[in-house]
Amino acid sequence: MNKTLFAVALAVASTASYAQMKPEDAIQTRQAGYKFMAWNMGKIKAQVEAPETFNKDQVVAAAKAIAGIATSGMGALYLPGTDKEVNGVPTKAKPELFADLSSGAVKVKKFAGDLVKESAELVKVAEGGDAAAVKAQFGKLNGTCKSCHDDFKMK
Amino acid sequence: MNKTLFAVALAVASTASYAQMKPEDAIQTRQAGYKFMAWNMGKIKAQVEAPETFNKDQVVAAAKAIAGIATSGMGALYLPGTDKEVNGVPTKAKPELFADLSSGAVKVKKFAGDLVKESAELVKVAEGGDAAAVKAQFGKLNGTCKSCHDDFKMK
Repeated sequence: MNKTLFAVALAVASTASYAQMKPEDAIQTRQAGYKFMAWNMGKIKAQVEAPETFNKDQVVAAAKAIAGIATSGMGALYLPGTDKEVNGVPTKAKPELFADLSSGAVKVKKFAGDLVKESAELVKVAEGGDAAAVKAQFGKLNGTCKSCHDDFKMK
Repeated sequence: MNKTLFAVALAVASTASYAQMKPEDAIQTRQAGYKFMAWNMGKIKAQVEAPETFNKDQVVAAAKAIAGIATSGMGALYLPGTDKEVNGVPTKAKPELFADLSSGAVKVKKFAGDLVKESAELVKVAEGGDAAAVKAQFGKLNGTCKSCHDDFKMK
């Protein structure tokens, strides 16, 4: 899965239309993806922390949004030249992320693969409708977000 | 489907955690959703216009990201007070959108339902792997985006 994901990201990045993507647009697009995932994480968090509000359909929908974004090949948005502010658009990505990309993307592949795997699993668990199970899997997914942020996102 | 979608949006909007969402954050989050959908629409467009680049896995992934976002209850992000610039965050939503929401959301429900339906259909068609069929369904989905923009988004 990790290899596939990264292959997809690289393939997308190398198509003609993506050679034309402006670096500031790549930064804003990846930030948009994370922001939208975070909104959906917040909805799930609120419901697992107050199980009387748990609504299976809402949680499934939120999990699918997260999984869909996570699996869409965001690696393609870490274009060369997007490692620092470009045309007034800042980034919180650490230099360590781009250093890892340049040297085989070992950590990036691991984090991306974990995000894809744990978000897909959250969809499955949510479809089961058990709030406690969703809470546990949500915790796992949140852990993958945090691990990546610790290494690659500025405070 | 339209009714369900809107009910979900309203239910999410009415939970405690969403009463606390700042209006400027609601505007930025809906814009993030549209921006990320647009990126994925662009990937599919590039591939159906140059069928020799068509990659089923990439198109399915892009379609799932769009469908996931479209179905996540974005209606909840059109909170009261988000009909104009708030704390320096502008919006391109027209007053007509909020007028429609106030008077039964007839058009909003129709557009939201179409977006959910046509994006789900795009996932199915993409999984079939036929580039020409994807092009046709992509056109339909793009038409639903455009219809809503014509009525509710400033130029």
